[in-house]
Amino acid sequence: MGKEKVAIIGSGNWGSAIAKLAGNNVKKHSDIFDDSKVPIWVFEEDFEGKKLTEIINTEHENKKYLPDVKLSENVVAVPDLVEAVKGATALVFVMPHQFLDKCLDQLEGKVEKNAKAITLIKGVGVEGPDIHVFADVIQERLGVSCSALSGANIANEVAIDRFSETTVGYRTEEEGQLWQKLFQTPNFKVQLIDDVAGVSLCGALKNIVAVAAGFIDGLEYGNNSKAAIMRIGLLEMKYFCQEFFKDVKEESFLQESAGVADVITSCLGGRNRKCAEAFVKQKKPFDELEKDMLNGQKLQGIHTAKDVHIFLKARDRLGAYPLFDKVYQISWEGLPVEKLTEGL
Amino acid sequence: MGKEKVAIIGSGNWGSAIAKLAGNNVKKHSDIFDDSKVPIWVFEEDFEGKKLTEIINTEHENKKYLPDVKLSENVVAVPDLVEAVKGATALVFVMPHQFLDKCLDQLEGKVEKNAKAITLIKGVGVEGPDIHVFADVIQERLGVSCSALSGANIANEVAIDRFSETTVGYRTEEEGQLWQKLFQTPNFKVQLIDDVAGVSLCGALKNIVAVAAGFIDGLEYGNNSKAAIMRIGLLEMKYFCQEFFKDVKEESFLQESAGVADVITSCLGGRNRKCAEAFVKQKKPFDELEKDMLNGQKLQGIHTAKDVHIFLKARDRLGAYPLFDKVYQISWEGLPVEKLTEGL
Repeated sequence: MGKEKVAIIGSGNWGSAIAKLAGNNVKKHSDIFDDSKVPIWVFEEDFEGKKLTEIINTEHENKKYLPDVKLSENVVAVPDLVEAVKGATALVFVMPHQFLDKCLDQLEGKVEKNAKAITLIKGVGVEGPDIHVFADVIQERLGVSCSALSGANIANEVAIDRFSETTVGYRTEEEGQLWQKLFQTPNFKVQLIDDVAGVSLCGALKNIVAVAAGFIDGLEYGNNSKAAIMRIGLLEMKYFCQEFFKDVKEESFLQESAGVADVITSCLGGRNRKCAEAFVKQKKPFDELEKDMLNGQKLQGIHTAKDVHIFLKARDRLGAYPLFDKVYQISWEGLPVEKLTEGL
Repeated sequence: MGKEKVAIIGSGNWGSAIAKLAGNNVKKHSDIFDDSKVPIWVFEEDFEGKKLTEIINTEHENKKYLPDVKLSENVVAVPDLVEAVKGATALVFVMPHQFLDKCLDQLEGKVEKNAKAITLIKGVGVEGPDIHVFADVIQERLGVSCSALSGANIANEVAIDRFSETTVGYRTEEEGQLWQKLFQTPNFKVQLIDDVAGVSLCGALKNIVAVAAGFIDGLEYGNNSKAAIMRIGLLEMKYFCQEFFKDVKEESFLQESAGVADVITSCLGGRNRKCAEAFVKQKKPFDELEKDMLNGQKLQGIHTAKDVHIFLKARDRLGAYPLFDKVYQISWEGLPVEKLTEGL
């Protein structure tokens, strides 16, 4: 059998941090991986008068999205998506979820038959009463087995080798071990669990909880209230996934980095928490805060809350998830934020 | 059957906050409780030239330990312990653990035969290879059924009616419901679980985790690392209790306020976290920090870490709890704090 050829699809902050780990690890495990080249697909753009791919390939640094972190020289930026994945057997999807469909359009029929994939994309797809995780979408559209990685992973902290952990939800144990070898370092511990859906859903739903935590910070209710909201949110995440996805594992939520630890990280720092706090203190609507604080990018938590609201309404299950619903009502329907804790 | 007569044993910050809730709730549930009087035992001392019991009984406020919070007028301060519990059928123990033994010496043989108790005391008793929770100590010495209450409960926040939650580990469901009626308010949610040991142990062991979190803050490792340490600590708490106490429930740790939520609160704020951070940043020994920051009071987390170390060593199980052991080594044996995350 030939060695695994890795390709990284996406080169933002998190994609670049992961490329750093992967570039080093293929050398460490060169018995398994082709260590000569780790292509990273870069959506071409100009940065400080140069092409971003050119900067990455000459300076070995993604100066726009992950400045001051050196990438291994075998990480090679490729502006053409199909070329980037050519011959690759281990595909790492790491991009904002709104770009996934377009990427898959281009990739369909173009990936290796024996390839496997992993997605680091946060979010969840909702269409009325239907809900799906991106690992399933990738798996179905490309015909490759797709795992998921999620955890308490602020990209910049991982990139500078701060101690942290993550969770891989795998399709087969063998694939789990492959992804562990690709990403794990002494300071980046990769736990494995047989639960693709659970791990994927944690990464999406925790943003709703982070918005709720931000509301509490804005109200200045203190750490008791914040801890209570985080606990209630974590349990709603668990109940939601257990209700709508068969075979999710309780441990993914309550014991894994993807669950409890990512809820903690997101409620301590993170843009969802921060914008929600500003929503209360500055009394500005979220679309204005998105402009002011996120350069016009969408605030994931409130959009996930809306998706989940639409889904739960279609399934007639709104009443079962009071915290999720309160976050929706406050963010989109003008419910006073002081009502957040009422009736929880 | 007569009505339940409540007595509160202890009048510090937490005891006074709980007295406020109990004083109001006996009136709300006057079908069950004698609402005429809730004695609270006060260790007599002078404050601003007056006796503390006198201040509480005339101004209905514990000006020394919970200033600016009015107590219900039926809360009556009593300086004599035996008098305070006379006729009481519902005993609430809420004092620093080092005073418990002396109180029990006085109370033995003096409490009502049909009385039941609940302890809100944090900590755990260790004597070499033996470990016990205070609920069991109270139960054995007084011959009364003793439940335990613990949760993400900063006393001042509970006292001013901020939204929060707590957990009662009960002996019988009926007793659980009694304690719930005594303490629950619309903004202080009392969950019940059939796990006295688990709830008791959470309140002790979380302080070790809070010290570890404080070390991470001192090192400025960021929120990924902090969330990872909290997750690992929570799991060590769970494994420890499952190994040494039969019938503890996983939910107490992973789902209840006493477990995950109290770990969060203690790692966000709290004296253990704060002193541990100062230990790293100011490079002062803990006994000096106890003098500077705690008026000479003991820092619970490091003393619990030492107790647990002695216990685990006696049981030859040190290696199974690397985070607990690292906290001990750093606090007492001069291990450099940078070693905290190594090998976790």
